[in-house]
Amino acid sequence: MMSQFAERMTTMEKSAAIIRKLFGAMNDPDLISFGGGAPAKEALPIDIVREITNEVMRIDKRGVEALQYGSVMGLQDLREVVVNELLSPKGVDAKVDNLLITSGGLEAMNLLCQLYIDPGDVILVESPTFVHCVEIFEMFQAKCISVDMDDNGMVTEDLEAKIIKYRPKIVYVIPTFQNPTGRTLSLDRRKKIAELGSQYDVIILEDDPYRDIRYSGRELQPIKAFDETGHTVLANSFSKIFSPGSRLGYVLASDEVTAKLFDAKTATNSHTSMLPQVICAEFFKRGYYPDHHKMICDLYRERRDTMIECIDRFFPEGTKRTFPDGGLFTWAQLPGGINTTELLVESTTNPDVKVAYVAGEGFFIEGGGMGNNCMRISFGGVSPEKIRIGAEKLGNLICSKLRLRQKAL
Amino acid sequence: MMSQFAERMTTMEKSAAIIRKLFGAMNDPDLISFGGGAPAKEALPIDIVREITNEVMRIDKRGVEALQYGSVMGLQDLREVVVNELLSPKGVDAKVDNLLITSGGLEAMNLLCQLYIDPGDVILVESPTFVHCVEIFEMFQAKCISVDMDDNGMVTEDLEAKIIKYRPKIVYVIPTFQNPTGRTLSLDRRKKIAELGSQYDVIILEDDPYRDIRYSGRELQPIKAFDETGHTVLANSFSKIFSPGSRLGYVLASDEVTAKLFDAKTATNSHTSMLPQVICAEFFKRGYYPDHHKMICDLYRERRDTMIECIDRFFPEGTKRTFPDGGLFTWAQLPGGINTTELLVESTTNPDVKVAYVAGEGFFIEGGGMGNNCMRISFGGVSPEKIRIGAEKLGNLICSKLRLRQKAL
Repeated sequence: MMSQFAERMTTMEKSAAIIRKLFGAMNDPDLISFGGGAPAKEALPIDIVREITNEVMRIDKRGVEALQYGSVMGLQDLREVVVNELLSPKGVDAKVDNLLITSGGLEAMNLLCQLYIDPGDVILVESPTFVHCVEIFEMFQAKCISVDMDDNGMVTEDLEAKIIKYRPKIVYVIPTFQNPTGRTLSLDRRKKIAELGSQYDVIILEDDPYRDIRYSGRELQPIKAFDETGHTVLANSFSKIFSPGSRLGYVLASDEVTAKLFDAKTATNSHTSMLPQVICAEFFKRGYYPDHHKMICDLYRERRDTMIECIDRFFPEGTKRTFPDGGLFTWAQLPGGINTTELLVESTTNPDVKVAYVAGEGFFIEGGGMGNNCMRISFGGVSPEKIRIGAEKLGNLICSKLRLRQKAL
Repeated sequence: MMSQFAERMTTMEKSAAIIRKLFGAMNDPDLISFGGGAPAKEALPIDIVREITNEVMRIDKRGVEALQYGSVMGLQDLREVVVNELLSPKGVDAKVDNLLITSGGLEAMNLLCQLYIDPGDVILVESPTFVHCVEIFEMFQAKCISVDMDDNGMVTEDLEAKIIKYRPKIVYVIPTFQNPTGRTLSLDRRKKIAELGSQYDVIILEDDPYRDIRYSGRELQPIKAFDETGHTVLANSFSKIFSPGSRLGYVLASDEVTAKLFDAKTATNSHTSMLPQVICAEFFKRGYYPDHHKMICDLYRERRDTMIECIDRFFPEGTKRTFPDGGLFTWAQLPGGINTTELLVESTTNPDVKVAYVAGEGFFIEGGGMGNNCMRISFGGVSPEKIRIGAEKLGNLICSKLRLRQKAL
């Protein structure tokens, strides 16, 4: 009856359905949700935003700038803040001219696909990887192929073999406190991946939204710090350190890539919303960031420690989990063939449990049930008290399932 | 040396270059600019935004909502505001469920292309049309074909003939105070275009960002009001009635199209920035809009009247110009073969003139010098005093050029 949709709407249908299923229906207020990846509401700088707005939203200050059309590349002083306060201290030598402000971190992935992906082009991703980005890649009709991961992140030997075999346009990596596993790519591999990009003329798309909330362990330089040829593109987000609802992110690229990003951004939404940009720039320039950063790191560290302690205590023997030095979640692999997709139905609807997580399967593009014994467990948005209650209930449910299975065998 | 860009980056290169040329370098503060399409800075609700933020950015009010992740479709109460205050009074019977909030009005065009455009698909556009959208269409590798316009907008006979001939996926129309001409599509043609969409199974993409700033003449129902089959998709923007820098717009579509828009929006930037959405919703709900609307209509009416009066007085005999009943610009066609692209160099650099406008040529996808005697003249962002000075200088320059040409003949 109606006009035919474009091809891309079909290729993305599977991942879109996974996302709607994974992340929908998690807003039941009775539920203790380890599902979403949202920051804690206590980590949102509500009062600071009000104070800043009250100061600068005046005709003789930044009022016009905040409400009038802005530049495609983003607000100049926000870009300076990123270069001077977020990149330079991490060992990334960036120029403001090479930095574009995006409408949230994810937009960088969309823009990079606009730049590079013709239908059928290959993108290499981690196994498991962030399903939201797979949806973007599939909308652009890319063929996603997975690269092995271990506790130190993407396995570079497998990456090189697959670069040679599949000639990808893009390698998509989340190097720090990876989504969904919480794993961090080792320093040697960071160097190696930057080199592989240069050597084989492949774009390394480094998506690093969690790196700025490290609360234990040693800081590692981004892959971009080792890029000598402009093949690595660094994407990051203000979602975890400022506010996700503001939809602010940035992308750092070479001169050539930046010129194309300018065109793609223009043809996507002209520029990123100005009011959040002005407020975020002032958040840094007025010196609010260091204290806020310390506060959220303390908050998340306590929640991680509580979650890890509870998993170790209440989950069955043989459970494997990661120990993230930052970020918002851990990843657990259950023993005894328990299917986490099936378990989720019971854990969210059984009135004695009412605990949500994200089932692991959806993060594996390989399909075929891979990862169906895994779960992503977010602790960022849940109070330590509720973490204790929820993890105990979830752990008990898993243990009871396991006993039933063992009895049946 | 570097990875090859996707095909789409080549197809959009021409229009991208036009945009960079047309709209760049217009920020010289010594210039009187009739170039940009930005609202007047006096029309920006700076104090209102501060007051609202001060009220609602509190933990026990809307603070969390404004900074936390939001829903893909947009803020519920902003969508209700649109339906009840902006669509229903205009004769559009809309459901909140069919309305998605976009990151600026342009994003709707990008999303619709994601839904419908495979490389080589045809989009019919007005002649002249908004070059910014042509850039989007070309990024999606659509083939744009122009449809004749007259003083009543797109000529429906030519439209029908071209629908039959080219089997387009989308017909792109700016019905009210069109960009760049300021023309308004007549009521009969609005009905006819909705019918043609249904009859030939073509999406009518109605882009109507100026309709809410009508300050003379009779209100006309949108094309969408006459759509009985869901083939018309209505896009609009808050840029002209609230703030362009906030990047807020909306798109109203059928159930089937809305479901796909949900997926495309998710894969573009997850959702629109929340803080501007919260503030904009409160701007309406607290009743600020009617007075603000009256203020900006009075402001623009005076500027239009001044501009029209000055063009009639200072531009040479034989100049044709439109008389827009709303919006931010008029369109002039100069006599005597004066090339407005060439003239722009002199008008912006000659220290005795220093007046900018947008040369007409770039708005015609036909190329070949079409429209090179036309100019888009924006009055929205310029004070009446400066309109008088600028239009007199520009008129004098045109008259002097004309005399030189006539002498030479």
